[in-house]
Amino acid sequence: MTAPDPGAGADLHLELPAEGSRRTALAQALRDAVRSGRLAGGTRLPPYRTLAADLGLARNTVADAYAELVAEGWFTARQGSGTRVAEHPAPRATRAAASAPTPSAPVHDLLQGKPDPASFPRSAWAASARRALAAAPTEAFGPGDPRGRPELRRALADYLSRARGVRTTPANIVVCSGFANGLRLLASVRPRDWAVEAYGLPFHHSILEAAGVRAHPLPVDEDGAVTDRLPTRPRTLLLTPAHQFPTGGRLLPARRAAAVEWARGTGGVIVEDDYDGEFRYDRKPVGAVQGLAPEHVVYAGSLSKSLSPAIRLGWLVLPDHLIDQVLAAKGLRESWASALDQLALADFIACGAYDRHVRRMRKRYRQRRDQLLAVLAASAPHLRATGISAGMHAALTLPPGQEVPTLTAARAAGLALDGLSAYHHPTAPPPAQEGLVIGYAALPDAAFTRALDALSEVIRRVEE
Amino acid sequence: MTAPDPGAGADLHLELPAEGSRRTALAQALRDAVRSGRLAGGTRLPPYRTLAADLGLARNTVADAYAELVAEGWFTARQGSGTRVAEHPAPRATRAAASAPTPSAPVHDLLQGKPDPASFPRSAWAASARRALAAAPTEAFGPGDPRGRPELRRALADYLSRARGVRTTPANIVVCSGFANGLRLLASVRPRDWAVEAYGLPFHHSILEAAGVRAHPLPVDEDGAVTDRLPTRPRTLLLTPAHQFPTGGRLLPARRAAAVEWARGTGGVIVEDDYDGEFRYDRKPVGAVQGLAPEHVVYAGSLSKSLSPAIRLGWLVLPDHLIDQVLAAKGLRESWASALDQLALADFIACGAYDRHVRRMRKRYRQRRDQLLAVLAASAPHLRATGISAGMHAALTLPPGQEVPTLTAARAAGLALDGLSAYHHPTAPPPAQEGLVIGYAALPDAAFTRALDALSEVIRRVEE
Repeated sequence: MTAPDPGAGADLHLELPAEGSRRTALAQALRDAVRSGRLAGGTRLPPYRTLAADLGLARNTVADAYAELVAEGWFTARQGSGTRVAEHPAPRATRAAASAPTPSAPVHDLLQGKPDPASFPRSAWAASARRALAAAPTEAFGPGDPRGRPELRRALADYLSRARGVRTTPANIVVCSGFANGLRLLASVRPRDWAVEAYGLPFHHSILEAAGVRAHPLPVDEDGAVTDRLPTRPRTLLLTPAHQFPTGGRLLPARRAAAVEWARGTGGVIVEDDYDGEFRYDRKPVGAVQGLAPEHVVYAGSLSKSLSPAIRLGWLVLPDHLIDQVLAAKGLRESWASALDQLALADFIACGAYDRHVRRMRKRYRQRRDQLLAVLAASAPHLRATGISAGMHAALTLPPGQEVPTLTAARAAGLALDGLSAYHHPTAPPPAQEGLVIGYAALPDAAFTRALDALSEVIRRVEE
Repeated sequence: MTAPDPGAGADLHLELPAEGSRRTALAQALRDAVRSGRLAGGTRLPPYRTLAADLGLARNTVADAYAELVAEGWFTARQGSGTRVAEHPAPRATRAAASAPTPSAPVHDLLQGKPDPASFPRSAWAASARRALAAAPTEAFGPGDPRGRPELRRALADYLSRARGVRTTPANIVVCSGFANGLRLLASVRPRDWAVEAYGLPFHHSILEAAGVRAHPLPVDEDGAVTDRLPTRPRTLLLTPAHQFPTGGRLLPARRAAAVEWARGTGGVIVEDDYDGEFRYDRKPVGAVQGLAPEHVVYAGSLSKSLSPAIRLGWLVLPDHLIDQVLAAKGLRESWASALDQLALADFIACGAYDRHVRRMRKRYRQRRDQLLAVLAASAPHLRATGISAGMHAALTLPPGQEVPTLTAARAAGLALDGLSAYHHPTAPPPAQEGLVIGYAALPDAAFTRALDALSEVIRRVEE
């Protein structure tokens, strides 16, 4: 262990990986040194220029890495006494590792599910937030109604009707803090058996499992979930009809009809997860199943894909008979969704800024999609990409036995992306389809191009 | 199922638990009967005296329980036709009742727990939100780190140290969407037995119960919870040391020391609910217990009292050994707390606006408190008000047998306020202290004066 040295700062021996962001790698190496005890609490760090010279880095890179660790609480910085290791720097690092890339972790982020953070419409949102704050009635600053702000429920009823073919009134809308929050509420009021798609987000599977729901996976093909032979037991059916997640099929009209028929005949409820329904590239957006049978479908949406997962807002459009139960599950007061964000979003939708943002992002994501398809066509013309008519990810099917070696090679090349089999429901009959789930929305342009180069190189190499 | 009987009212067979508040138990049994369908929509309830005789209860108890269910929308009451089960009973109405006064709902709102919504610092907050949005790094618009924004954790570490004597670093802070969210997280990582104060918020008791926690109520007196003979079984101790909720005592230094001693000796954890610690009127704020033993205390705070419950933000300051567990309970991404609100709050604290707001509100609430005390001194000089050195509510002790008639008269006079016994833990040994819990922060000035007039009139009338 390096002893604290109040004079020149600790003598640091750090090994950085050869590739990737220098600042990220240095920050991670410093975190590891603190975590392992090599850098003890109170130790004074070497001045930027010393460490920069030692490691062959720009001085700014070192300054940035130090600042990052100060921000995270690993280091403390005081005027005149330089930067030091915090006295109790703590095991808090686990999450740091989960959220920030580690030296061995990927630098080309193609993980699905993230919209482009750089496209967040800062000034339009700021204008909406300012107007909403000025116009808000006094009671908006008191305890929140668990249904959500009336301003937002009105704006959503209009928008969802117009843009997604949802048939509803503000009274049937309950605001929540995102789809996961909505799913937890629904699981608590619709316990026991749910039919689910054989492919889906593991996080959602866990939420249902934690709520004691038994899941009955339905087969999924290129036309979405096979809903024409629904099992009799479940009374709740979770679907992603606009863009099956993550395999990408659009639910066939006949299967939509079959699902609605099932709900009508059995008194069942369809939960429609419309996670990226706004981003359709081949034609007009596919309308919501909810429009066919508002009394049998819960329509669920959120801002997580369309605007930003940083604003924790989602919505459930409920059949009349579920409103009271869901509100009872929420409790007497709103515990989650920020009233200020709700008011800002109401203005943002009502003034047309939301529509403009969706249009802009649809164009951008479509270009990204085209760029991905062009690279795949050149480097892997025999592999099939599905789900490409919509959304912000594609599924690339791989021959049996190729998913694991491809993912291994991808990781070695600094690519972060998931295998398709990771989305296969744990109780669905094997085999899981092998492939890659490629998110194409989040990276900046140049980084995206580099990521695609790395991806096509990996695919070529695995096939050789 | 009992058939509707438009004549004499339904014949009701209810089983009440042997212990706890009769009114609460009856109200719950009635809700259950409606929910289960045993009491169908439109059913006429038996007259108070009939049900009271059947169940061996005071007639007022039945009247109060009926009134409660009418307020919540389960029942309807019409002049001349008695009380009936609502046609579409339920929490839908509860929400309405909770947020907007209905014709039958109270007009003088003295319910505790609500800061003044009209004092929300709109322009200062708008300025912070605008600056924060402009300065935010791009990644702030991506999926959220479950620890919370680093900008906010830095600002909170500074503020809590300075204002509340909390000893921490940003790395030990986990942002949540309010105290309830934090309590749920803590209950999931500290299951089984908790020692709790014999008086507290029923909502918090329910959260612990739903998480499977067994609560061991500790006696409470004017010096807070009696912590010098702590039971051995619980490993977690939930306290409101700065201002016992709602009875108002400040935890004695010797009892603080005893609690810390217990935690050190047993490896136990104290959860410090510092819900209104900023609003101290008799001297400087009482520092947090956390400062005595950061490794044994979870300090929990939120904006709900100090700024507004409409911004869903709270924070847990955790001992090192709990950070990873709480983060694991939160999950990989932030599901609740809005990143935009977090960034705005970080700026709001850092620029001094939060301190200014707290100072302004402390002055305002202190004037309100003085106004309440003056009215009580004139109208009920023999009654004792406690908890008046801090916060935004007072507890007014009543002689045995007077709480129910006072609350009944208060309701008739259009006053909304709670009885002290409603805050008595259901498993704490009876009798519950009788009294009123009077919130004095939320009403506009003129309405507050009118509410106090109505209150003193009620107190005078009941005593005659």
